[in-house]
Amino acid sequence: MSWNDVCDSVCPVARSLAVVGDRWTLLILRELSMGSRRFDDIQAQTGMSSHLLSTRLKRLEADGVIERQAYSERPPRYEYVVTSMGKELDALLLLLRSWGTKWLPPHEGSGPAVTLTHRETGEEVPDGWHQIYLDDYKGVLSPDFQDERDANLAKFQASKRQAKA
Amino acid sequence: MSWNDVCDSVCPVARSLAVVGDRWTLLILRELSMGSRRFDDIQAQTGMSSHLLSTRLKRLEADGVIERQAYSERPPRYEYVVTSMGKELDALLLLLRSWGTKWLPPHEGSGPAVTLTHRETGEEVPDGWHQIYLDDYKGVLSPDFQDERDANLAKFQASKRQAKA
Repeated sequence: MSWNDVCDSVCPVARSLAVVGDRWTLLILRELSMGSRRFDDIQAQTGMSSHLLSTRLKRLEADGVIERQAYSERPPRYEYVVTSMGKELDALLLLLRSWGTKWLPPHEGSGPAVTLTHRETGEEVPDGWHQIYLDDYKGVLSPDFQDERDANLAKFQASKRQAKA
Repeated sequence: MSWNDVCDSVCPVARSLAVVGDRWTLLILRELSMGSRRFDDIQAQTGMSSHLLSTRLKRLEADGVIERQAYSERPPRYEYVVTSMGKELDALLLLLRSWGTKWLPPHEGSGPAVTLTHRETGEEVPDGWHQIYLDDYKGVLSPDFQDERDANLAKFQASKRQAKA
């Protein structure tokens, strides 16, 4: 299965991953969330090559997650900002932040890399706002998704038989 | 910057991405969340090559996100299950599910790929449980993180000067 197939999956998790599952892409979104808007600033903080960064930014723009805004006409220069679609990934960044803080602590006693306080209430991002566990839920697959999974399985079994033959 | 550097970042988002930012890795976690526990079942549904799947499973195990459990001694056979650390990524999968459902709809009128109802209350996963926006928060960087970012910038500027010289 290639990522083009995954884009077309009935499963929304798979489709989302096709757009934002790439780690560089998520690191770009982190950087945009920190106020970096220009190519060089993003490149400096992510350490990506110009080519890689350019490719990822174009893809994010094509997917509607970010948009370019001109800040200079001559020469033409652009800044990158997240769209509404992109802003709804803030929760994803915050979740990765909580998870990394808890499970991948950098070293003893170091405080948070960024302290986030609510602009109005002054309160920090609530702890555990994201806690929700799949074990608490029962899942029922749609006929479309079941078909896709049956087809995946059949294809896999056929390729195994072929490999043995 | 390589992903080894990112592992050591002061930023917990970057550290998390070094562990789970890979799209195949997240697709494996989706598959485990759906009850697939065996190598072949995961391979069938993700379409990964044996080598790629094996590499990613080993890495996830080393990072503490999943663990192997023997289900047969002769021949030795293993199942993969998520650890407590891995279970706290359920929210990530659910978030990708919500986001993909909203922003990347597969085609008109198709229902959810998986209907998730709470085992006790019978209610569906609440809509919008994950809504939290960074615009509402003010960020203050820790001295360590500011140092890391200053060093990134200095390194980038030096490499640009060198490229020009």
